[in-house]
Amino acid sequence: LTRPGTVYLVGAGPGDPGLLTMRALELIRQADIVLHDHLVSVEILAQCGSHTRLIDVGKVGHGVQTDQAAIERELIALASRGHRVVRLKGGDPLLFGRGCEEASALRAANVPFEIVPGVSSAMAAPAYAGIPLTARGLAASVAIVTGHCGGSGATPPTIPIADTLVVLMGIANAASIRDQLLAAGRSPDTPAAAIEWGTYARQRVAVATVATLPDVIARDSLRAPAVIVIGETVRLRPVLEWFDSSSLASRDVLLSRSTATVDGSDHVWPPIAG
Amino acid sequence: LTRPGTVYLVGAGPGDPGLLTMRALELIRQADIVLHDHLVSVEILAQCGSHTRLIDVGKVGHGVQTDQAAIERELIALASRGHRVVRLKGGDPLLFGRGCEEASALRAANVPFEIVPGVSSAMAAPAYAGIPLTARGLAASVAIVTGHCGGSGATPPTIPIADTLVVLMGIANAASIRDQLLAAGRSPDTPAAAIEWGTYARQRVAVATVATLPDVIARDSLRAPAVIVIGETVRLRPVLEWFDSSSLASRDVLLSRSTATVDGSDHVWPPIAG
Repeated sequence: LTRPGTVYLVGAGPGDPGLLTMRALELIRQADIVLHDHLVSVEILAQCGSHTRLIDVGKVGHGVQTDQAAIERELIALASRGHRVVRLKGGDPLLFGRGCEEASALRAANVPFEIVPGVSSAMAAPAYAGIPLTARGLAASVAIVTGHCGGSGATPPTIPIADTLVVLMGIANAASIRDQLLAAGRSPDTPAAAIEWGTYARQRVAVATVATLPDVIARDSLRAPAVIVIGETVRLRPVLEWFDSSSLASRDVLLSRSTATVDGSDHVWPPIAG
Repeated sequence: LTRPGTVYLVGAGPGDPGLLTMRALELIRQADIVLHDHLVSVEILAQCGSHTRLIDVGKVGHGVQTDQAAIERELIALASRGHRVVRLKGGDPLLFGRGCEEASALRAANVPFEIVPGVSSAMAAPAYAGIPLTARGLAASVAIVTGHCGGSGATPPTIPIADTLVVLMGIANAASIRDQLLAAGRSPDTPAAAIEWGTYARQRVAVATVATLPDVIARDSLRAPAVIVIGETVRLRPVLEWFDSSSLASRDVLLSRSTATVDGSDHVWPPIAG
């Protein structure tokens, strides 16, 4: 169940509403207020209760940085007034989701919280592209990094070393990623793929090598949100490819709220009255 | 919806039934046959339809290696007879789940399949232990590896290099992991944690350092299934700890099948008639 005065830091998964967890569904149906990332899909927001107020608090990957401190203050204020508050994030809340910062702020303010892991796009986007992260004899380890530098002037994180590398939010920095991989001794012929809107009906996949990745991304005009996968398992895509976006239309997704409402007038950030 | 003659390779998540995805729930409710890992929790199996035959096909992490080729043959045979078949795996099917091998076998036999990503214990067990995988200023990359060597005589995989390291199925090899980390130059004082039965009500967590991890695991008698996390973010556990196993009892989990049935007579592997 859900408790008044509590903040739930919830992963919404990668996009396909079928990948929402049961606990996340229960929470957004019962929540008084849902503060959600811009990228959470309309079909998922449509599952919120009819009484639930939806607030879009961020444009992820679109340049404008949401005021993180303001979000944290708002979570504390809403919970302190006795609301059931869901902070709904794309993917998983503790993997590049700033959930750690929000949980720390809530703890400092003595606001009870719960963390609900979600299916990360780091795993789901490759899966929907027919690319396994591990495979016997090909890849026995995975590393995940973000290609997004965050605040201005920050240096990009060092590329970790593993058999398969997943880069979240790296599409705009593909040339830099290529250069770092080559400098680290990775072969330019290593297979690579970029997955735009992974798990959505509009998913697009481009296959390249480390050397050609930036050119292929430019050729196909791939944009954020996108996941990059680098490693030998990319070669398995012709065998494992299964996702047919037309099959999504036949799913049993119950809409408890019209998508018109979701797209429209609830977005009132900032400020919030009540 | 589900289609006859199709195999669904489904991640059941880390254990807590609340972390099952909506698509996984839909599939196990409609399946004719569910071939599941030994570790999939009874509460999740209880969600299967009353007509669904459950088959336990593996003891994961308990020494006895299930005959993988036999499972693949059975998936193909059952789908070819027109059954709706779910292969239900702990965590995510493409992350150390042998889902890659099963999908390849299905493709070779022209059996249609779908892959349903799940919440990995690599993310969820740390989250339930109050340990984020990334945190601004502390950890900007994550690597995931298995500490289990698979077949006899196989050499353990090389430890990948990243700010946070997650080791699945590594509890029995903690001393070897410590030695590899020290040989790679990681400080013996690096924080480390071991999480037994992560996300289950019986979850236990032990905090140590790289140097003391094997001793702490022995002191607390931690056993598989367990997840090991190594990195500076382990220090945040006192701030982020939130999981109270008693709260699980108040969840809205609908049992569509008695747990007595789930624990009992359906386990008929091998062979299968029909």
